Amino acid sequence: MKKKIRVSIVGARGYTGQELVRILLKHPHVELVHLYATEQGVDPFGEEFPAFYGKTDLTVEKWELESWKKDEDLFFLALPHGVSMSAVPTLLKGGVKVVDLSADYRIQNVSLFEKWYHAPHHDETHLKKAVYGLPELHRDEIQEADLVANPGCYPTSAILACAPLFQSKEVDFDSIIIDSKSGVSGAGRKASLATQFAEVSENFKAYGVTTHRHTPEIEEQLSMAFDQDIQVNFTPHLLPINRGILSTVYLNLKKKLHQGEVLARVQRFYKKEPFVRVRESEKLPEIRDVVGTNYCDIGVRVDPRTSRIVLISVIDNLIKGASGQAVHNMNLMYGFDETTGLI
Amino acid sequence: MKKKIRVSIVGARGYTGQELVRILLKHPHVELVHLYATEQGVDPFGEEFPAFYGKTDLTVEKWELESWKKDEDLFFLALPHGVSMSAVPTLLKGGVKVVDLSADYRIQNVSLFEKWYHAPHHDETHLKKAVYGLPELHRDEIQEADLVANPGCYPTSAILACAPLFQSKEVDFDSIIIDSKSGVSGAGRKASLATQFAEVSENFKAYGVTTHRHTPEIEEQLSMAFDQDIQVNFTPHLLPINRGILSTVYLNLKKKLHQGEVLARVQRFYKKEPFVRVRESEKLPEIRDVVGTNYCDIGVRVDPRTSRIVLISVIDNLIKGASGQAVHNMNLMYGFDETTGLI
Amino acid sequence: MKKKIRVSIVGARGYTGQELVRILLKHPHVELVHLYATEQGVDPFGEEFPAFYGKTDLTVEKWELESWKKDEDLFFLALPHGVSMSAVPTLLKGGVKVVDLSADYRIQNVSLFEKWYHAPHHDETHLKKAVYGLPELHRDEIQEADLVANPGCYPTSAILACAPLFQSKEVDFDSIIIDSKSGVSGAGRKASLATQFAEVSENFKAYGVTTHRHTPEIEEQLSMAFDQDIQVNFTPHLLPINRGILSTVYLNLKKKLHQGEVLARVQRFYKKEPFVRVRESEKLPEIRDVVGTNYCDIGVRVDPRTSRIVLISVIDNLIKGASGQAVHNMNLMYGFDETTGLI
Amino acid sequence: MKKKIRVSIVGARGYTGQELVRILLKHPHVELVHLYATEQGVDPFGEEFPAFYGKTDLTVEKWELESWKKDEDLFFLALPHGVSMSAVPTLLKGGVKVVDLSADYRIQNVSLFEKWYHAPHHDETHLKKAVYGLPELHRDEIQEADLVANPGCYPTSAILACAPLFQSKEVDFDSIIIDSKSGVSGAGRKASLATQFAEVSENFKAYGVTTHRHTPEIEEQLSMAFDQDIQVNFTPHLLPINRGILSTVYLNLKKKLHQGEVLARVQRFYKKEPFVRVRESEKLPEIRDVVGTNYCDIGVRVDPRTSRIVLISVIDNLIKGASGQAVHNMNLMYGFDETTGLI
Repeated sequence: MKKKIRVSIVGARGYTGQELVRILLKHPHVELVHLYATEQGVDPFGEEFPAFYGKTDLTVEKWELESWKKDEDLFFLALPHGVSMSAVPTLLKGGVKVVDLSADYRIQNVSLFEKWYHAPHHDETHLKKAVYGLPELHRDEIQEADLVANPGCYPTSAILACAPLFQSKEVDFDSIIIDSKSGVSGAGRKASLATQFAEVSENFKAYGVTTHRHTPEIEEQLSMAFDQDIQVNFTPHLLPINRGILSTVYLNLKKKLHQGEVLARVQRFYKKEPFVRVRESEKLPEIRDVVGTNYCDIGVRVDPRTSRIVLISVIDNLIKGASGQAVHNMNLMYGFDETTGLI
Repeated sequence: MKKKIRVSIVGARGYTGQELVRILLKHPHVELVHLYATEQGVDPFGEEFPAFYGKTDLTVEKWELESWKKDEDLFFLALPHGVSMSAVPTLLKGGVKVVDLSADYRIQNVSLFEKWYHAPHHDETHLKKAVYGLPELHRDEIQEADLVANPGCYPTSAILACAPLFQSKEVDFDSIIIDSKSGVSGAGRKASLATQFAEVSENFKAYGVTTHRHTPEIEEQLSMAFDQDIQVNFTPHLLPINRGILSTVYLNLKKKLHQGEVLARVQRFYKKEPFVRVRESEKLPEIRDVVGTNYCDIGVRVDPRTSRIVLISVIDNLIKGASGQAVHNMNLMYGFDETTGLI
Repeated sequence: MKKKIRVSIVGARGYTGQELVRILLKHPHVELVHLYATEQGVDPFGEEFPAFYGKTDLTVEKWELESWKKDEDLFFLALPHGVSMSAVPTLLKGGVKVVDLSADYRIQNVSLFEKWYHAPHHDETHLKKAVYGLPELHRDEIQEADLVANPGCYPTSAILACAPLFQSKEVDFDSIIIDSKSGVSGAGRKASLATQFAEVSENFKAYGVTTHRHTPEIEEQLSMAFDQDIQVNFTPHLLPINRGILSTVYLNLKKKLHQGEVLARVQRFYKKEPFVRVRESEKLPEIRDVVGTNYCDIGVRVDPRTSRIVLISVIDNLIKGASGQAVHNMNLMYGFDETTGLI
Repeated sequence: MKKKIRVSIVGARGYTGQELVRILLKHPHVELVHLYATEQGVDPFGEEFPAFYGKTDLTVEKWELESWKKDEDLFFLALPHGVSMSAVPTLLKGGVKVVDLSADYRIQNVSLFEKWYHAPHHDETHLKKAVYGLPELHRDEIQEADLVANPGCYPTSAILACAPLFQSKEVDFDSIIIDSKSGVSGAGRKASLATQFAEVSENFKAYGVTTHRHTPEIEEQLSMAFDQDIQVNFTPHLLPINRGILSTVYLNLKKKLHQGEVLARVQRFYKKEPFVRVRESEKLPEIRDVVGTNYCDIGVRVDPRTSRIVLISVIDNLIKGASGQAVHNMNLMYGFDETTGLI
């Protein structure tokens, strides 16, 4: 058996942090070294989160970059946007690898980042070397990377739906509309009035219409994939469920294209991918098909009446949309079998 | 006070039927005469549905057209599609008015009806005289009608969002995409595996993609409203909530149009309407804003980057999308103040 | 028609506050004068809470006792525990009546209050004159009161279930166990981690086991009702729903008593009550039977095997458990028909 | 590695059946041979249940005892009550072992079974040899058994809470009250009006009060454990969640007993058990602590005011309450490490 790598998590108390702990405790090539949080911990992790009772003796430690003990090989950073970029330079200089789950290194175009995140970027040096951690599009670069920017949850579902159409000249790429619906855990684990049970339950709403920060991330990746300038309408909505994203994607056809042909292209594109399942059957993907897994399931319809493609993709926002994909990236960075710990 | 009209409901046990009973028991100009169902009733309505305990002495009676007692002025028919059309000729001939909540009289183009509903239409005679009961578009005809076809829930939310743009030459009406999300009560009150709690909760899915029967209803009404042939993409999704529909509607602009202008047109169109509220504030409409009411709330965004209008409309599918609108139609048919019983 | 009374609400932004606004806007004898909150308001109430869009022109004002304008007849105080008692003396002295929805005036035994609420009581003077606002037990005193302490939500459901057994010598009153389950709105409208959607949904838990503050309130009222010292086990649980409380109450029988006899006693006790419905039929009360109403529905079972009575009571915690009962109390205080605005 | 045993499931389409498939596909000592259902299957299992897409090639086959192929070592029967007992004699005679998830072999007292299940028992011969498959109480017998009666979900949670008090002379065993709350999946996967989403969501109710069939199962097992005749009040309630049971158990103390002592007894009783976690910390068990796992978490409170013990136990009804416990039993029957496939 391979020697185990030593791994720490910063932000272990959040929903993505807990999910990372859950996956990594069962990962045969990983030893979890430290669980950090930005506030002081008190109890053992297994007492603060009783689902982990008896599973680990680790206690949450307060994260302070200055007193970093340098006893790990890789960090998962599950920190708020803007905070990661102040830690990454030190960590990389210290010789560790980093999978960053914030948005700080996702967008290569700095001015685009600064415009949509309303904040300056302080680490352009490493941004240039960061690899966008969507294995289906960037597997080779991830294998060589020291810094991986783990994709956003919405972009994961949106990009995976659209990417297979990259050479489809029949498609009007100016027409992309992404209507996404996400569970509440995507908003993170924090006291907030907007995500109180009594505000969310028996309710449904759109938010960030035309202004959501995942828009430039989707556009930059699709522009690279399609080798042309892409602008999309991305509309996120808040579902009264814990986990899962379903994106309904609309694209206009410039020329006729049968459903079977589109389906075949999507299947061909993903035929070797371990975590993308393209649905052949009558049943379109539903969120429950992927909850608790690292899969992205994709379904295809073509409406001959309106000459429009409708794609449906579903993921678990905390796994394929965050922690599972982060571990997938780690597996690639260390040459482990890429499904280790995830199936 | 006006003399009360005598009203019966067929299909009183369904969710729309119960909602009709609730509204009509408080309506000052209505006397509820009979509650009918297609299966034999046993208990008083207030025992079968304890929310009504002590509110009414009526018992559910078995509906049999042959033994109709002719002791009412108006019928609400909350029957399955295909069944209404076998009762309506007799009822109208018997001198009563009818508000039909099924799809049987909603689509004027018979071949379109037969194609999407996979069944023949048996009552073209009355179909021609039926009025589509969306008061915001057909108030005058409703006032004169003996037979009103109460609109479908999805079409109500979709048509009300789009209709104000009817003279907007800047809008590409070939580009309409309606992405709708509905609560489960829209599927009716019947034992079904697909709508079991354990199948719906913590789940979300699209269904009837490119094939849902409300498509031709939306298209026929918008074609009339815009005076041109309209085809849309309509994608319904199933929300894990009891009640409410939110429709996100996308339209492309052919020429520049500011958000303020679009908003002004929508406001102008509805300025005298008692049950449509156009949102001026930052907050887009959410389902909870209208649950339990007969309102349709509408919000407007224009994305200058992609030249696209995004409209959000919300209704309670059982009230504005069914029983409330049915009572609104009844109020118009009898010259009552149109908000009676609904505010 | 009676002259309208002028009414203000302090704490209008909370869930009980909003429910009071909803009820009072339709109350024929009430003019809503001011909506106050402890933080500054900005928008009109109908913009902050779009369900009220177009229903009222009132704006939320910041509550400051010092600058009280004295232009109302009655106050509803929906303030946190401990805050009401600092305002009530001034308000009563200023000649207004008060219905207080906090716990400050619910418990007559001051030392009991201080022990369970871990805080001193500053207004024993008015505490002595306060009337516990459960109309079914204290109707006459409420009619004469200037200060009504509106009951807690759990105590309302628990006391109403038990009270009819007051003269039942067959019952062992030392054996009362109250196992209650409440929706999340009972925790109030505030940003809290424990009541985040992702913490509550698909979850269920007990809390405050043996220590919940509603225990002494239940015990004091039952002790008065039964004229003996009562101690109970009260266990609240958090349901993943917005509204409603179901209490399952267990009492041991010392002597044989048939279900029919117990049911008859409960029915007799409530036979003139407008808001308590005792269930005769097979169906035990469910939360949905009362959501949105001021009813308390009660069901009765006797287990002959174990000689135990099981009572089930359900209420809407925001209406019969808070705002509806508060309006009921107001109706009694002013001699209005007691169901006005509530049916 | 041990040779794999060959296993078939009858009733693979139900919720417990699917959960068995999920666990067994990852079990290192099991080869899944047949998936049977009482209705004809059509699609591969992975198409009918897309969560399993790509995980298995098995197709659901119609179960007919007459055409049994005898190519397995063990059967899991997830059949309705009354059906198992017509298959078990043939299966045992054919030389296979059986874990039966129905109620048919759970109750040793035949007349008790017949009274509560309103049906005759046809297989007393094997009933006598069946072992009640609660490993924490019957591990040794399970290891020797050919026929294991897998416990009901409610009884699992109730018995595990009470059993550690077996030698506690301070406890009044006539006073046991079990107030249980279960998610909807416990009702099985079938079209039923009572478990429709719109009937369950935002609702909560008790059912089977004083009459639920799990009562005699709980009583028989506790009577054995305590070596005295036990009768309990068991009240099940329906939670609007998919999975999980929380039981709140009340017992009176005849003599003083401190919380610490009760906790110590419960801990001692389960100290070697791999799937029972006794909570030492402040936090009482919640359903989410165990969802998706085979754990039963137990918390203890003693109320010195009322001299009453309150126990809280939580399980996932489909795992510890059904399929996980069934696999635990299989592990014991074959001498595998008992946590195999379950941690």
